[in-house]
Order: sequence, then structure tokens, then C-alpha cells
Amino acid sequence: MLACRLEAGAPFSEGQTIMSHTFSLEAAREMDAQDDLATFREHFVIDDPDLIYMDGNSLGRLPQATRERLHQLIDAEWGQQLIRGWNAGWFTSPERIGDKMARLVGANDGEVVIADSTSVNLFKLALAAVLAQPTRNKIVTDDLNFPSDLYILQGLQRLAGRPLFIQVVKSADGIHGPVDDLAAAIDSDTALVTLSHVTFKSGYLYDMAAINAIAHEAGALTLWDLSHSAGSVGVALNRANSDLAVGCTYKYVNGGPGAPAFLYVRRDLQNRLGNPISGWMGQKDMFDFAPDYEPAAGIRQFITGTYPVLSLAAIEPGLDLLLEAGMDRLRTKSVRQTEYLIALWQRELQPLGFSLNSPPEAQWRGSHISLGHQDGFRIDLAMINDVKVLPDFRPPDNIRLGITPLYSSFAEIWTAVHRIRRVMTEKLYEKYDPTGIVVT
Amino acid sequence: MLACRLEAGAPFSEGQTIMSHTFSLEAAREMDAQDDLATFREHFVIDDPDLIYMDGNSLGRLPQATRERLHQLIDAEWGQQLIRGWNAGWFTSPERIGDKMARLVGANDGEVVIADSTSVNLFKLALAAVLAQPTRNKIVTDDLNFPSDLYILQGLQRLAGRPLFIQVVKSADGIHGPVDDLAAAIDSDTALVTLSHVTFKSGYLYDMAAINAIAHEAGALTLWDLSHSAGSVGVALNRANSDLAVGCTYKYVNGGPGAPAFLYVRRDLQNRLGNPISGWMGQKDMFDFAPDYEPAAGIRQFITGTYPVLSLAAIEPGLDLLLEAGMDRLRTKSVRQTEYLIALWQRELQPLGFSLNSPPEAQWRGSHISLGHQDGFRIDLAMINDVKVLPDFRPPDNIRLGITPLYSSFAEIWTAVHRIRRVMTEKLYEKYDPTGIVVT
Repeated sequence: MLACRLEAGAPFSEGQTIMSHTFSLEAAREMDAQDDLATFREHFVIDDPDLIYMDGNSLGRLPQATRERLHQLIDAEWGQQLIRGWNAGWFTSPERIGDKMARLVGANDGEVVIADSTSVNLFKLALAAVLAQPTRNKIVTDDLNFPSDLYILQGLQRLAGRPLFIQVVKSADGIHGPVDDLAAAIDSDTALVTLSHVTFKSGYLYDMAAINAIAHEAGALTLWDLSHSAGSVGVALNRANSDLAVGCTYKYVNGGPGAPAFLYVRRDLQNRLGNPISGWMGQKDMFDFAPDYEPAAGIRQFITGTYPVLSLAAIEPGLDLLLEAGMDRLRTKSVRQTEYLIALWQRELQPLGFSLNSPPEAQWRGSHISLGHQDGFRIDLAMINDVKVLPDFRPPDNIRLGITPLYSSFAEIWTAVHRIRRVMTEKLYEKYDPTGIVVT
Repeated sequence: MLACRLEAGAPFSEGQTIMSHTFSLEAAREMDAQDDLATFREHFVIDDPDLIYMDGNSLGRLPQATRERLHQLIDAEWGQQLIRGWNAGWFTSPERIGDKMARLVGANDGEVVIADSTSVNLFKLALAAVLAQPTRNKIVTDDLNFPSDLYILQGLQRLAGRPLFIQVVKSADGIHGPVDDLAAAIDSDTALVTLSHVTFKSGYLYDMAAINAIAHEAGALTLWDLSHSAGSVGVALNRANSDLAVGCTYKYVNGGPGAPAFLYVRRDLQNRLGNPISGWMGQKDMFDFAPDYEPAAGIRQFITGTYPVLSLAAIEPGLDLLLEAGMDRLRTKSVRQTEYLIALWQRELQPLGFSLNSPPEAQWRGSHISLGHQDGFRIDLAMINDVKVLPDFRPPDNIRLGITPLYSSFAEIWTAVHRIRRVMTEKLYEKYDPTGIVVT
């Protein structure tokens, strides 16, 4: 199927045809020259242009503006304003930056807030959903979901006050989401359907609206993990009629290592659900120090404790860049780049034993490509240590190549693929053993 | 009682006698000159020496070394190392810095970890304690506890799988902990006793070992909130036979606004309790991405999701300063300084209508002093805006004056008191109304 699309020129939606010259470095540079988002790369700290970073799906690059914002926050706000920093912006930042995140993921003001980690937010919202529906005893998910999400659900089972069954629907090929089997699993006993919008390993992209419709038909709520989709694909939470969502900010949002996560609760659900980890930052009139918990109005109630101001502030400049570029343009470029990478894989890497472990169809795919190889882990090490390409590795055999349309270039993709070829032809990976130790 | 102690010279344990000349600025400067911790002040960013910061009990100052550490982390680690930063130290930092925190609070290596917020950590440990003791249905606390701790307990009530009673024992005077009434409340139905070691408003300091002994006699576990005691008073978790603790790092530890919190689980309880918010950062072999949660060995299992690396790293330099100064010396200085402040209050402020809302006895007191005044909120505003003294305010009438022995000087305390006098004698507070609006 991929070959057919390539022959038809489909991957290059703006009228380009894949010809043999497309596979030259010059052609890649020409595509960069015609890329109207190319200048966004200049907004990031890139100290070593020879290093090809293909792990923005795990930790995004440092925006120049973030560096400046953090220096200001540390030196001028913490250092000089001291406690007055709280009234000068820190108190409102979870909602203010949350409103920007809402724009990125297709939600309204007052429906998204920055708080805690993705896992803690998932715990809060999944538990709230289960407690709000005491006659439904099942959570439906899939085996492509991020393991931490499954661990959180397992932890919830003790807390629902009733037996709670977690049905993990299996993907037939380990790549595509098991949509039909999910539909069969979702029933009148289902309280919650929770899935990764883009799956962490294969990069499968769910049709959010379709799953929501199936869940709502059965009377269940949905909870999406947007960690791999926020900033990489178009997300339309409201238009798709989504109930709940969580997601991280340190991948395509470029918020910095471990930056706090976000959560979304559709406005009409906010009072119905509430926050089971009820802390003072989500309290109405918190500085009254009243002895009894009374939730703040709206999305603020879903914050729990005092949040890490430095790491939270670091989210905003990267988010501003995404909003400026626009998700439509970013998604268009991302699709072109993943299609280009797949075309290069087919030509250069498939003959060397690499399999495509991501959906070949652009509409079912996020912005990273997993390539499988039986020596995947050793190849990953050689890429990092020997040829200056940074991917990441997910067992058993997946080398994940993340494309970040804000700063990934076509020339980098071309060069990365040819450096991987070098790792293979020069057998650079053979000096590592499967535990990562250099053996030669 | 205070007067008796002053007459006996007790507050100045190193042989000084309180005489009238003690109340001069020159005497304060002399005490600073003799203070062997005075040079620690130089390790902090202090851009405006005329600003008297008495809110280190809420947000500690910025250490010079933290500024440098953060710039390095942002520019060199995130900016250049990118994802490799995780293997270059970020993965181990919660336990590595946790071990330093353990030294500060009298615990062993492997018993403390940095994670989440104080409220989320309290949720995890209180819930774990309640789930581990299914035949006990009561949590005992007091009304001096920080409200967020009470809110978290209220949220737990839905999750225990059984009716759970929270008994909030009342302080007779709103200042001292109700030790006798707590002892009476703790019984064979009590699962958990949880208290603030130093209370947020009055600064009352509990005898940790005594409360632990009462709880253990009844078969209950104890959970201490060390937010106002870590870095301000000697904490001996192990020696006092404490079971569980949480605490924040942005007050006396100087970790920066909203820096992540810490939690302590005594080693023999770690496997018995487990973490009810079971996430991937607490998973054994997290990079296996196994579908079922299996807790990491030891304290690591109490981490949940990915933590804010910047805000977490900011904790360490301040912690190093505390360990270098030593809690014995810091506590000695803190007691001298709070005694000095109380002596100045008695002489300069009590005649102007200020009450002492903290324990007059040094052994029952942390490192901040609450002064009450019917116009407290307006006085607080005038202190901040008109005379460059930064305290904070806790309703209904408490002006909290935090003393941070690492950088508070005797001369600052003297000057702060005399500036408060100026606020009163020049009626500077009268231009504010009780909502904080300037009315004149």
C-alpha cells in the first residue's frame, strides 16, 4: 500500500512527486527551503548543528525564549521579588497557561489547567469518573496504552469501593488500535474508556470523535492521554465531544524535563466530578484557611498542592511557538516529514532488515516512527554514541524516530537515515552487547 | 513566664544577659558579629540590603549556588545534553537528593525521596496507612494542622472502602498543641495520627517522640508534616521512632517557589504500605514497559509520575547549605533570634496592641513568630508597601515573622520591629482598608 501511495505522489500533498531525485540530500534541502515553518528552528537553542535530534517526542528542545524566561524568573522574580512573585503572576499561571494549552488541544478557556504529573492527573480524573458512576464497574483500555496509565488504573481498583474490572483490549498487530474490539468491549457496565490518543510505541493515532461516540452510546465517559499528540497532531477535544483528558508538556510542547502536566475537564462535567485529591490550591478562597474543603469554581479545583513554579513557567514559551505556527501547518509538515521518512526507510533501511512498526497510513499516525530491528537496542546505542543521531528505544526492538515539525528539517531526516545505514554497513553496533556494555 | 526567663537571662544561652543596652541596634550588630553562622548570608542573592525579608518560612531566598546550578541545568543539560540528561543524573536525583534530605530530618539513606507536592504525598501515605489497617476506622489530627492536610484527609474518606472518621482535636488557646486531648482521642480504632510538626500559624512545635509513643501504644501509625520544621528545628525521625512524614522544600530549605516535596517512609514499613498512586517512575525496571505494576524496591516506589527536573534540582544547593551549617547550630541561633524578637515585641510592640500568638516557651516553638493585632492585615500591607519589611499574614489577625537562621540577622530583627513601630506611630496602615485597597 505504501508503494502505491508513493507512486501516486500522495505523501507530498502539495503537488510534489516522489522521483528518484527526491532521495538526494539536495532534494531534502530544497524541501527545507520551501518550508514556511523552517524559521521556527531558529527559536531553539541548537549548539551543535551536527547532532540530529530525533527525540522531541520524549524531551523537546529548549526554546530560546524559555531560557530567557527562566533566567528572569530565577534572578528577578524568585531572587528579588521573593514571596511577592506569587501575587505577581505565579498564582494565576496554571490557569493562564492552561488556557493557552486549551487553544492547542481544541478546548475552551477554563477547561484546561496545568498541574502535577500526567500519571497523577490520570489518577484524579479516572478515579473521579469511577466514583461518579457507582453502578458501572468496568474501565476499558488497550495494550498500546502507556504502561503508567495501566499502572494507575490498577492502583485505582482498591479505591472504588466496589470490584472494578479493567479490560485491556489487545491490538492484533501491536501497531494499530483495536477499534472494533474496543467497540465490542464498551458496554453498559463501562464507566470509563481511557486510551492514548497517539500510542507511545507505534505512534497509532486514534479517531477521537469515533471512540467518544462509541463510549457515549454506551453511556461511558472518555479520558484521553494526549502526551504524544499535544503539539504533534491536531487535537479537537470539544469538537470531538471528549469528556476528560490529560497530557504531558515536555514532549512536543517543549516545556522542559518533567515539566508539569495538564488536564482537561469538559465544563459541564467539572462540578459533577470534583477532585479526589482535594488540596489547598484547588480550594475556594484558599487564603481564608477554612477547615473544610470547598472546591474552587471551575477547573481550578483540579489543582491539588503547590506547583513547581519554575518548571511550570518553562511551559509557556514553547506553547506560544506552537500557537504561532498553528497546528494545521504543523500537522501538514509532520505528515510530509513522516511520509518522507517512511519513503527513505523503504528505500534505504528495509533492505537492511528494519521493519516499519508504525502505521503506514498517515491518517492513523502521530509524529514519530518506530523502526524495528532484531539488533535494535545495539543500533540505538551506536546511533547515539557513534553517529550523533539521538532517537530512543522501546522494547523489544523499536527505535523511535521522533519528528518535531517546529525544528526537524528534511535534511536532518535524510542524514539520519544515511547515518543509520552507516551504523549497519560499518557494523558500528557490534561493539555493544544487548545490555549496553561495550564488548569490543 | 517570659519575663522570668528574661530576668534570668535564659534566652541567650551563651552567657549573655538581657540588659537595656541589648535593645539597641548596636547590640544587635554585636550579636551578628559574634554569630558564627553569619557568613552563610553571603551565600544568598540579596540585591536590596534594605529589604528585610521575614518570610523565609513561606518562600526561602535564592541561594547563589542554586542560581548557578539552574543556569547550568537549563543551558548545558536540557539545552545541550537533551534527552541524555536523564541518564546523566536526572533519573537518580529524587533518591540522591532524598538521601540528603534524610540527613536533615534524622532518617537513613533510602527512607526519603523527593516527589510531587506535600499534599499529594500526604494523600499517598495517609491512604496507604488507612488501607493497610482495615480494622481501624479513625484518623486523629488537630485544628492547628495546615488546612490542605485536613482537605486531603476529607478527600480520603470516600476511598477507604469503609466509613472513616476524622477526629480534629481542638487546641484550647489556638497556640499550643492539644497534647492531652490528642492522647485521649488516640485509641484502638485509630489507624493514623497526623499532625504538623511545627504548626503553620502559631509555630507550635510538637514533641514528636512523645506523640509517636502515644500512637504506638494504641497501635496507630504516625504521619508528620515537616513543612515548617525541616530546616528550622532539629528533626529526628528515626530517633523519635516516626513512621511516616512529608514536607515541603520551598520554605526553610530554600528550594524555590513550589519546589517538589519530600516523603519519608520508615524502612520496615515500605513494603507493607506501598503507593496507592502507582506510576511508572515507581515501577521496578520501568524501561521494560511491562503491562503490570510491580513496585520498585525501597523508597523509589513512592514516586508516581515524571517529576519536574528543574524545580527538583533547585532543592539541592539550599539543602547543602543547611547540612554544612548543621541543624544543631541553626536551631541554637533560631532560638536566640526568636527569643530576641519576643523580647523586642514585649518592649516595643506589646504596648501598641500586638499580642504574641506563638508559644512563649522556646522548646515549644519553631522559627516563626505570629503577632496578633486587630488591624493585622492592614499593618501587614503597610509593612510590605511602606517600610520594606516582608512578613506574611494568616487570618484572622496574625502577622507571621519568619526567622531563617541561615540568613536572618539580629540587626534585621531589631530594624523590623522598629519599622513596625513606625507603621503604628505614623499610622501608615490607615490608608488601606481591610480588603487591601488603598482608601486614602
